[in-house]
Amino acid sequence: MSNVQSYLDAHFNEALEDLKAFCRIPSVSTDPAFAEDTVAAANFVAERLQRAGFASVELLETGGHPAVYGELISDTTLPTFLVYGHYDVQPPDPLEKWVTPPFEPDERDGRLYARGVSDDKGPLLIPIIVAEAYMKMAGRLPVNLKVLIEGEEESGSPHFDATLQTHRERLACDLVISADGAMWRPDRPSMTVASRGLVAFEVTVDGASKDLHSGRHGGSAPNAIAALAALLTSLHGEDGRVSVEGFLDGTSPPDARIIAAIEAADFDASAYYGEIGSNKPDPIDNGRELLIRQWLEPTLEFNGISGGYQGRGTKTVIPATASAKITCRLVAGQEPDHVVAVVKRHLEARLPRGFALKVHQHGPGSSAFFVDPDLPALKVAEGVLADLLGREPLRVAMGATIPIGASFRKHLGTEAFFFSFSTSDEDYHAPNEFFRLANFRIGLTAWALLLERLAAA
Amino acid sequence: MSNVQSYLDAHFNEALEDLKAFCRIPSVSTDPAFAEDTVAAANFVAERLQRAGFASVELLETGGHPAVYGELISDTTLPTFLVYGHYDVQPPDPLEKWVTPPFEPDERDGRLYARGVSDDKGPLLIPIIVAEAYMKMAGRLPVNLKVLIEGEEESGSPHFDATLQTHRERLACDLVISADGAMWRPDRPSMTVASRGLVAFEVTVDGASKDLHSGRHGGSAPNAIAALAALLTSLHGEDGRVSVEGFLDGTSPPDARIIAAIEAADFDASAYYGEIGSNKPDPIDNGRELLIRQWLEPTLEFNGISGGYQGRGTKTVIPATASAKITCRLVAGQEPDHVVAVVKRHLEARLPRGFALKVHQHGPGSSAFFVDPDLPALKVAEGVLADLLGREPLRVAMGATIPIGASFRKHLGTEAFFFSFSTSDEDYHAPNEFFRLANFRIGLTAWALLLERLAAA
Repeated sequence: MSNVQSYLDAHFNEALEDLKAFCRIPSVSTDPAFAEDTVAAANFVAERLQRAGFASVELLETGGHPAVYGELISDTTLPTFLVYGHYDVQPPDPLEKWVTPPFEPDERDGRLYARGVSDDKGPLLIPIIVAEAYMKMAGRLPVNLKVLIEGEEESGSPHFDATLQTHRERLACDLVISADGAMWRPDRPSMTVASRGLVAFEVTVDGASKDLHSGRHGGSAPNAIAALAALLTSLHGEDGRVSVEGFLDGTSPPDARIIAAIEAADFDASAYYGEIGSNKPDPIDNGRELLIRQWLEPTLEFNGISGGYQGRGTKTVIPATASAKITCRLVAGQEPDHVVAVVKRHLEARLPRGFALKVHQHGPGSSAFFVDPDLPALKVAEGVLADLLGREPLRVAMGATIPIGASFRKHLGTEAFFFSFSTSDEDYHAPNEFFRLANFRIGLTAWALLLERLAAA
Repeated sequence: MSNVQSYLDAHFNEALEDLKAFCRIPSVSTDPAFAEDTVAAANFVAERLQRAGFASVELLETGGHPAVYGELISDTTLPTFLVYGHYDVQPPDPLEKWVTPPFEPDERDGRLYARGVSDDKGPLLIPIIVAEAYMKMAGRLPVNLKVLIEGEEESGSPHFDATLQTHRERLACDLVISADGAMWRPDRPSMTVASRGLVAFEVTVDGASKDLHSGRHGGSAPNAIAALAALLTSLHGEDGRVSVEGFLDGTSPPDARIIAAIEAADFDASAYYGEIGSNKPDPIDNGRELLIRQWLEPTLEFNGISGGYQGRGTKTVIPATASAKITCRLVAGQEPDHVVAVVKRHLEARLPRGFALKVHQHGPGSSAFFVDPDLPALKVAEGVLADLLGREPLRVAMGATIPIGASFRKHLGTEAFFFSFSTSDEDYHAPNEFFRLANFRIGLTAWALLLERLAAA
């Protein structure tokens, strides 16, 4: 390990130049105008894997942008880990908000600024460079490593499940380690061990067969907006929590270590409401409860509503129909279909006379992701961070949905955890995305140590 | 009067030919493509007034389509009545639903089919023809008559108030009699003695300063749709009535004679819900209460709602803002501004933490219209209908808003009542509008008798 660390130190500037070269490729997966660049980024990863010493390097056809695969099998009796990452990036718009152009990487104040540098080009290069260091200094890795870098993460990974299914034998491993993800705060190491699932549906209420004149019919005809508003209001209690019977079916109390992390975080609710531009009295005035709600509780959020006349001015109409788009964030144990079913049952039981109700589910949804809290590798990773950074990492959850965890579990039958050196404040879906170079260095050391300790675990 | 009736009988076919000629002019006021036709209809009315013997016949400039004025002053010691009507018509769309073309009047089964024949060309021709009969047979009218026929009623009468104000001396009268309006049902004579006022406003709720990601922020950030839905729901009670404190300020119990008319009407609520296409259990299952709500109670109806994502599929956004368009129908005693103020106060008191509220009123609104129940001319008119039709007319109210009543009261200081021989089932805003020729005949006799009895009253 000391040799490996020396190699990483001696070659850090090369690593940085590699990262800059990678960031010069505008691999925006959602925009067909960047299709050639996206393939160029895939080829960059493949070449970097080959240079590091990986075998069987290949672009996997997916039906969309290719995924890049490579492997380094040292000894079949050693455990095998699959590293996940993505070479595609978010669109750079709005361009005029960038201090330096998004695809011309710029070093300022110990940070490298470029689109994709933090999400996920910097973090995914780390394990590849670490593998190279082991190969140069020891001729082999302490464990077997497979690498799968996809090119459609920023487009919702539409071909990822099928790709895992097609290549499940080649991708077989003991555990997935994601180089994508992010530490929660810059001032404290953290491990993301849970994220919420998602299910989307639409609720439509119908009254009369067509819009009616509000003068002639006002007071007697069924008003679809009134019925919809009352139904929506019935879905939450006074405290803002979901009040649907059966909504929490299958759930268990959250991991006590995450609650402990929340308590340690001393989160400032007022500062949060300031950041999101809500300059009114804070709806939830203590940080502990706020984080519990964001990380560990399921939600039912109204994403859109429409009905009746929505143009300028006024129109004296009683709307025949009104609808709302809803998504639920799910916690461990909640099944997407069951959640929609209990919400539908709740609404049907409260439907006022004179109306019909439709509930339409959008897609199958995804269950919550969570790392087994007793997973040995998780404890190894936490130990690495504690030793390198001088503080026990927090176990954090995230409110957003990370579908890949559930995908690996489903198609490969393996657990996954996140070991990323991106930080959530690095503006990775906004102008002036950056990556802290100190974390690039720490990440290289941390991955080197992780591989060594996983071999011994 | 017997001479006049003989004249009307002898010249009924000419009257019918006049009405057909009038209906051949497509005077659609809302569509600039018909601008020339609309002026042609104004000229038709002016010529018909001159032929009947009216003096001072003139097209009054309004800034939009002209109004037509004429007068017949028999004796300045007699009372003066102003007849109101409108020569413009609704658009004829959808054309393909007409059995015969809308501007080619067609007699079938005792009805004349044409756009505008019932609203308001037939009814407004009646008093002109009656005046002509008096002039031919007696050389004078039993009362003084002024006639004002506007050309923008179907466009919301945007220049009507200004026209009344400009010409208020010329238009001075003891009472306005509107030839526009409609009997409620074909099987029973009725007088419309009240209609509801109107005020429109928009309610907007703001949470965060921009839409937020529902994964990251779900459960903690303020959801504007949820707050709006709860606020809207708070505006009505369980029985569907408005539950805002102060909403009924200034109102009095309704005219007992209208309640009596409602009870006599034996209205079928189930048939009503069938007609409007609500094939669900009737929200209000007795006809008496339904008519009381439609005619005599104020409403607060949601006309439109919007917020968040409204496109196809789904978007995981927590909307920063949501808004609803609302109109209230008002009864006698309710002031539009006061109604908006008490609704605003109600909403502000219930605004959840974390949100801001805006209430924007659209225009000044209009108060309810109602005829003084003791107006002598109203009783004269009721007596005419009772004598001619063999049954006491019902005193009915209408849910929709008739701004002209309030306009005449405001600018001329005179009361108004409706004496129309249109019937509310004559499809006047739909394809195949028709006018019952029996009512054309009855209307001629009734107006002749009305003028004679008003002179004696």
